[in-house]
Amino acid sequence: MKDFEFYLAPVAPTIFGRKGRAEDGVVVFGVPFDSSSSRMPGQRFAPRRIREVSVELETFSPSLGVSVEELSFYDAGDLPVVTDYVVMQELVAKVVGGLSEAGKLPVALGGDHSITLPIVAKLVEKLGKLLVVVFDAHMDLRDEWPWGVRFSHATVMRRLLEASEKISIAYYSPRAFSEEEYRYAKSSSRIHVLESVEKLKDVVGSSSPVYISLDIDSVDPAFAPGTGTPEPMGLTPREAVTALRTVIEQAGEVVGFDVVEVNPLVDCNDITSLLAAKLVMEFLFWFHSRK
Amino acid sequence: MKDFEFYLAPVAPTIFGRKGRAEDGVVVFGVPFDSSSSRMPGQRFAPRRIREVSVELETFSPSLGVSVEELSFYDAGDLPVVTDYVVMQELVAKVVGGLSEAGKLPVALGGDHSITLPIVAKLVEKLGKLLVVVFDAHMDLRDEWPWGVRFSHATVMRRLLEASEKISIAYYSPRAFSEEEYRYAKSSSRIHVLESVEKLKDVVGSSSPVYISLDIDSVDPAFAPGTGTPEPMGLTPREAVTALRTVIEQAGEVVGFDVVEVNPLVDCNDITSLLAAKLVMEFLFWFHSRK
Amino acid sequence: MKDFEFYLAPVAPTIFGRKGRAEDGVVVFGVPFDSSSSRMPGQRFAPRRIREVSVELETFSPSLGVSVEELSFYDAGDLPVVTDYVVMQELVAKVVGGLSEAGKLPVALGGDHSITLPIVAKLVEKLGKLLVVVFDAHMDLRDEWPWGVRFSHATVMRRLLEASEKISIAYYSPRAFSEEEYRYAKSSSRIHVLESVEKLKDVVGSSSPVYISLDIDSVDPAFAPGTGTPEPMGLTPREAVTALRTVIEQAGEVVGFDVVEVNPLVDCNDITSLLAAKLVMEFLFWFHSRK
Amino acid sequence: MKDFEFYLAPVAPTIFGRKGRAEDGVVVFGVPFDSSSSRMPGQRFAPRRIREVSVELETFSPSLGVSVEELSFYDAGDLPVVTDYVVMQELVAKVVGGLSEAGKLPVALGGDHSITLPIVAKLVEKLGKLLVVVFDAHMDLRDEWPWGVRFSHATVMRRLLEASEKISIAYYSPRAFSEEEYRYAKSSSRIHVLESVEKLKDVVGSSSPVYISLDIDSVDPAFAPGTGTPEPMGLTPREAVTALRTVIEQAGEVVGFDVVEVNPLVDCNDITSLLAAKLVMEFLFWFHSRK
Amino acid sequence: MKDFEFYLAPVAPTIFGRKGRAEDGVVVFGVPFDSSSSRMPGQRFAPRRIREVSVELETFSPSLGVSVEELSFYDAGDLPVVTDYVVMQELVAKVVGGLSEAGKLPVALGGDHSITLPIVAKLVEKLGKLLVVVFDAHMDLRDEWPWGVRFSHATVMRRLLEASEKISIAYYSPRAFSEEEYRYAKSSSRIHVLESVEKLKDVVGSSSPVYISLDIDSVDPAFAPGTGTPEPMGLTPREAVTALRTVIEQAGEVVGFDVVEVNPLVDCNDITSLLAAKLVMEFLFWFHSRK
Amino acid sequence: MKDFEFYLAPVAPTIFGRKGRAEDGVVVFGVPFDSSSSRMPGQRFAPRRIREVSVELETFSPSLGVSVEELSFYDAGDLPVVTDYVVMQELVAKVVGGLSEAGKLPVALGGDHSITLPIVAKLVEKLGKLLVVVFDAHMDLRDEWPWGVRFSHATVMRRLLEASEKISIAYYSPRAFSEEEYRYAKSSSRIHVLESVEKLKDVVGSSSPVYISLDIDSVDPAFAPGTGTPEPMGLTPREAVTALRTVIEQAGEVVGFDVVEVNPLVDCNDITSLLAAKLVMEFLFWFHSRK
Ligand SMILES: [Mn+2]
Ligand SMILES: [Mn+2]
Ligand SMILES: [Mn+2]
Ligand SMILES: [Mn+2]
Ligand SMILES: [Mn+2]
Ligand SMILES: [Mn+2]
Ligand SMILES: [Mn+2]
Ligand SMILES: [Mn+2]
Ligand SMILES: [Mn+2]
Ligand SMILES: [Mn+2]
Ligand SMILES: [Mn+2]
Ligand SMILES: [Mn+2]
Repeated sequence: MKDFEFYLAPVAPTIFGRKGRAEDGVVVFGVPFDSSSSRMPGQRFAPRRIREVSVELETFSPSLGVSVEELSFYDAGDLPVVTDYVVMQELVAKVVGGLSEAGKLPVALGGDHSITLPIVAKLVEKLGKLLVVVFDAHMDLRDEWPWGVRFSHATVMRRLLEASEKISIAYYSPRAFSEEEYRYAKSSSRIHVLESVEKLKDVVGSSSPVYISLDIDSVDPAFAPGTGTPEPMGLTPREAVTALRTVIEQAGEVVGFDVVEVNPLVDCNDITSLLAAKLVMEFLFWFHSRK
Repeated sequence: MKDFEFYLAPVAPTIFGRKGRAEDGVVVFGVPFDSSSSRMPGQRFAPRRIREVSVELETFSPSLGVSVEELSFYDAGDLPVVTDYVVMQELVAKVVGGLSEAGKLPVALGGDHSITLPIVAKLVEKLGKLLVVVFDAHMDLRDEWPWGVRFSHATVMRRLLEASEKISIAYYSPRAFSEEEYRYAKSSSRIHVLESVEKLKDVVGSSSPVYISLDIDSVDPAFAPGTGTPEPMGLTPREAVTALRTVIEQAGEVVGFDVVEVNPLVDCNDITSLLAAKLVMEFLFWFHSRK
Repeated sequence: MKDFEFYLAPVAPTIFGRKGRAEDGVVVFGVPFDSSSSRMPGQRFAPRRIREVSVELETFSPSLGVSVEELSFYDAGDLPVVTDYVVMQELVAKVVGGLSEAGKLPVALGGDHSITLPIVAKLVEKLGKLLVVVFDAHMDLRDEWPWGVRFSHATVMRRLLEASEKISIAYYSPRAFSEEEYRYAKSSSRIHVLESVEKLKDVVGSSSPVYISLDIDSVDPAFAPGTGTPEPMGLTPREAVTALRTVIEQAGEVVGFDVVEVNPLVDCNDITSLLAAKLVMEFLFWFHSRK
Repeated sequence: MKDFEFYLAPVAPTIFGRKGRAEDGVVVFGVPFDSSSSRMPGQRFAPRRIREVSVELETFSPSLGVSVEELSFYDAGDLPVVTDYVVMQELVAKVVGGLSEAGKLPVALGGDHSITLPIVAKLVEKLGKLLVVVFDAHMDLRDEWPWGVRFSHATVMRRLLEASEKISIAYYSPRAFSEEEYRYAKSSSRIHVLESVEKLKDVVGSSSPVYISLDIDSVDPAFAPGTGTPEPMGLTPREAVTALRTVIEQAGEVVGFDVVEVNPLVDCNDITSLLAAKLVMEFLFWFHSRK
Repeated sequence: MKDFEFYLAPVAPTIFGRKGRAEDGVVVFGVPFDSSSSRMPGQRFAPRRIREVSVELETFSPSLGVSVEELSFYDAGDLPVVTDYVVMQELVAKVVGGLSEAGKLPVALGGDHSITLPIVAKLVEKLGKLLVVVFDAHMDLRDEWPWGVRFSHATVMRRLLEASEKISIAYYSPRAFSEEEYRYAKSSSRIHVLESVEKLKDVVGSSSPVYISLDIDSVDPAFAPGTGTPEPMGLTPREAVTALRTVIEQAGEVVGFDVVEVNPLVDCNDITSLLAAKLVMEFLFWFHSRK
Repeated sequence: MKDFEFYLAPVAPTIFGRKGRAEDGVVVFGVPFDSSSSRMPGQRFAPRRIREVSVELETFSPSLGVSVEELSFYDAGDLPVVTDYVVMQELVAKVVGGLSEAGKLPVALGGDHSITLPIVAKLVEKLGKLLVVVFDAHMDLRDEWPWGVRFSHATVMRRLLEASEKISIAYYSPRAFSEEEYRYAKSSSRIHVLESVEKLKDVVGSSSPVYISLDIDSVDPAFAPGTGTPEPMGLTPREAVTALRTVIEQAGEVVGFDVVEVNPLVDCNDITSLLAAKLVMEFLFWFHSRK
């Protein structure tokens, strides 16, 4: 058992039905946490469900000529379900710290969006600067939400920017704003709002390293109904994949990835979990093809 | 208010979490009626559910630079659930009559499509003529449906045309016809069937005033599954919003709006109610920007 | 009120459809909190759902010859949904403190079982001692659950006993124990485990005042499936009502009541919410008949 | 029949998988009507669903030594779904009139409870008097419910008593009353409220003929969750069967039977429809054994 | 028919509410079989559900000027539900053999995809060669799946190619491959993989006769969530209809059609069954217009 | 890895959250098979779901003074999902054969009831005779069901009696019979039908060894709705536990146990899976206390 696995429990089935090898450089792990979800909890069930449905996906990529079975990754299991934000934060920091020291790239399965804070905060410690590319219908830039709560999925990007001056954020096609968030974003030189793949290419190409955080509600509710706060008029899955691939290909370095806000409790035949699994597979394929 | 109530809110989300002011000119109200729904009842639950989920939508429009909080509207609440068509008709007529006298514009949350009849029939009393723009997969022009029933959501437009010579109807992109309805529509000079936004612009631009009735089944079932009679191959939400905006911008006068046939009983994670709330928000934004 | 509102009702069913009068001595309020629920969140939806379905219950008690409409209580509404345990605790303490000062009896609609801690902790401040009668499948006496978490619905009674030496607990027919909890209960002179109505009568009759906390999972999952941690082989609703009535009748004084752990997300046709509403009604009837 | 149809069966399960013979004296038919249901519509789906699940029930009665296949009944099919109370009433009256003239005994599958009015009103025309034995959590004696509506499932027994002086009603173990209904029942010499099988035996034994109307909400929601207005603390299925059998055995004559208020939309794995089918089977068995 | 049956309809919706005439050349029948479905069974419920919802679709085609009521087809009903692959295969072979001899064209409603094997194997007996056009996310070319199982929905096309040298397969836009299947397809001269309507036109136009097998998972999960193995990033319904129409118009001869893998157990408001019904209607319309 | 584990894959979480030790004498394993289920498939999901919910059950038995953690058992995982009856039978026979040779007692989690055949058929090979005690609403004694199918969950006990003369069956309180089955049971000297715990005690006490097969539909649908063919008027969970305990205590030897027909697809909040897990726990406790 590796150090970073101390807090993780095995989950079976594993992602794409493959445990992988402990020596591989990409490590997939789950953070079944939803106690900061303001509308509809249930994201705690996502890591296990994404793995369960992932074994139904076919694994060969004709364009790359490679199968998932040949990719280099390791499924390290899940953190325990905890209900306290502080405890979750500590556990995630310990796991990501361990991965960091071991030179591994974290791929996290949320959980609500609040899990991105401890992951990125830990990663940035060892970096000079970091661009976080965010796929999300929302900006998650509130100062407090819900009433009186400072740490939640709706404030995570605000907290992230406060956590370190080294972090900047590039949003891809957000579409739902409170006035407060919109004005905050406009006024900050560390926030980019990008509406096209070309802009995305520009910003990512000139920044490095890059962390990618994908809130599944960036995709339209028709394709991803199983999420905490669905918002009409989102991306199609093809648009999401194209943009994701662009980031992976253009970034000087990719240091981590998460897929968050999948909520199996309110999904329809697991199509949201399946899409999340597919997006993880796409990440692995395109990350593999970087080399 | 008692001291101990300081932190307590009444259990009643209003639309977008805002009651509004009684003096405002746009009045939102619900008609929780589904006793004329021929396939799948449950539309009675829509007004409350649309309000509940509406508070999850972000409220700032970057393109207009305005927030919902600044718009002028008043949420007047719901009619009681009644099960008798005649009683519903009387209650709606009284409400719309009162609004009319007070110079208010009604925005109704259905209920099945039959609620449009008493609204429009009352409004037209004070008008010289009226164009009803209908977004619907269907034409609702049957003479009798189901067996022996003359007042239902499937006959509402036929009854409307009979109610007053002053009414004409413009359908935007209907896609499901009985032969009877199709021939009836073709033979009537008071019915327009419009397949493009350009045609819509033409017809609306030269008619006035305009009432807009939006059956949510005009949108494709992937985006709006929670409805009484979903029909494949409908509009995308973006297409619906574009056409809705066109009508609001082009009309000489807009005298009312309804969103009908949302059925929360058979929805998936309330995405249909969310879309309906978003369409009401779009109406309010574009109606606001007319001024 | 405007003319046109004559037929419109605000969208907000109060408990049993009755707001009550602010001067009445019993105050019903909701605590929509579930961020400490270890298995299945969704209890945040209970206060609103219990009210919604409560209006379907008939309100006349032939045995008492009185209707709910004649009872003395006031529905004060709900706390906001918050996701942070500390914030919830503060808000509850302020509400219960206010009620206490005003001489009101609190009836709380949970929320997960953790909400009982701030209620009782606040109430006991003004009392010499307090017996908490607990209906629950479980003992909620763990020291830490889940992993690393000290404040949750699984530790609430342990924290309560620690909060004040003045508190003792009488469990009615618990049926699911960890060994740790069982030994802890056995070793504490402040914990009673009662298996019969007779025992309940004895203990309650000789203690005063009494607070009643009813975890809906005390009832069998067949009758109350919509709960966070259903446990087979529980009470029938009649057994629960008989025991509840016994406590109310036998207690020297009753200082508060809560119904917790109803989870509408995983219920079947709201039968659990209906049962919870019925239990609140029974409480109000029997509390009324004490006088 | 074409050759290729040899292995094909028409898609239409009849009750217990048996069409029966047109000359048989008991006729089963469905009334898929729910437009007078005040809380939760969906009873229109009951007749078809009850038949579908009925084919899963085993058909041999060891105590009677007879199989359903040997019983005398005919499944005549369903009325069309109509949404107008007046139309439904006319259609039911025609069917029951036809059955009456042909000397057949009607067994009706509802639909909401309002369907009992036209059935019984038609039957009583040819009778000197009629006792209606009602299994129901409620009394359905309101004068108007919902607001402004005189014909609904909540007023059906009031309308029935008004329809003919020859009708009296015996309720078996009702448990939910408005004060208005309770006082009305107490003041009427044509209403009996019976709390035990012995009382039932007395009243039924001395009255004749008897019609039986079974609202599935008489059974506890645990056993029959799929109904419009579930009410806690009802009969067990065994208690219901015992009472039903008592009525059939003790009545001088049985002239009809209905099972109403099954709502498949809000059921759990069709257990309510299965129970309804079983109750129809019990009726047929015990009616058969009278001879 | 007895008098009292005048208003009663048998409980059995046929496809589009029309039994058709036995002498018509197109015969629709259902195969409610799902015992070879590897992930999510429930396809056995599709034939009945597709018929039930099909009666909600409007039936007039303005572009063809014809109604479904004028088309020539006969709904022959369903095979019994059987659970054994061998028994299903025998029954289907007998039905298709009978149809073949009578000169009828089979339109089959699955069931899982395994039902295509006995249909096509029987049809090809009388033909010199046969092109099977397959709409499917997958290739169904595995040699064994699940573990140890040679006859299943995942191996059906492999078995079909083995069944007769006369069969070749044209896949339209498959998108999920195992490496084994992909290499097998590439190495076989009897397999075409077509990515555009133009290619489809070429291949179909030069082959004859043609059988069309449409696995509903070819359509994107947003539009067709109710299926056994949904796979992200599929066709839109319009793309599917366009391609289907192309095949029907271009083929020298069309000898059969099936729609498979609809799973009503995991659908959302039956939108997948509705789409399947619509696709059958489109087949009938375009097949009619060939003549 | 033990021999018998060759075909089994690990499942996490394990039953009651405990893998156990390979040297322990009781081995729990799952058979996720439902391809012979005649009404409602989904039993393939039971083994994993029962384990998932089992970790929510408290583990201390006050009456025995022992915790599940101290019991001797090993969770060996699940067979792969296969869809072919013959393949399932072979795999089960290999696993049970391996267990038998290793002197282990099998505890199987179904799957539909057909899985009992290969288990018992293998066990009886090494025994002189075997009494199978069956808890079931049904007798499963049909010769063929569905149409043409000889191996299914409805014929399993018939096939078992044919498999070996050494087997006899004792049914506890069956309640649903076809006439064929009832007469077959009455005519066979190897079949006992027992209606009381006393009779059960007599028959079990004088027979040895004993295998116990518990079809969850023996319990009433209110308590166990999630099953393939729910049948009204069954056992309460307490009655089931009492009878199960009686068999374990009275039997000279217990050689195996299975819990079958749990169907998570059609359950309500997993209460049926929870009950099944509880029954396995009860088996382990009472089996432990035999020693
Ligand atoms: Mn987010
Ligand atoms: Mn978001
Ligand atoms: Mn309409
Ligand atoms: Mn429509
Ligand atoms: Mn508790
Ligand atoms: Mn509890
Ligand atoms: Mn009733
Ligand atoms: Mn009732
Ligand atoms: Mn396929
Ligand atoms: Mn496929
Ligand atoms: Mn069985
Ligand atoms: Mn059974």
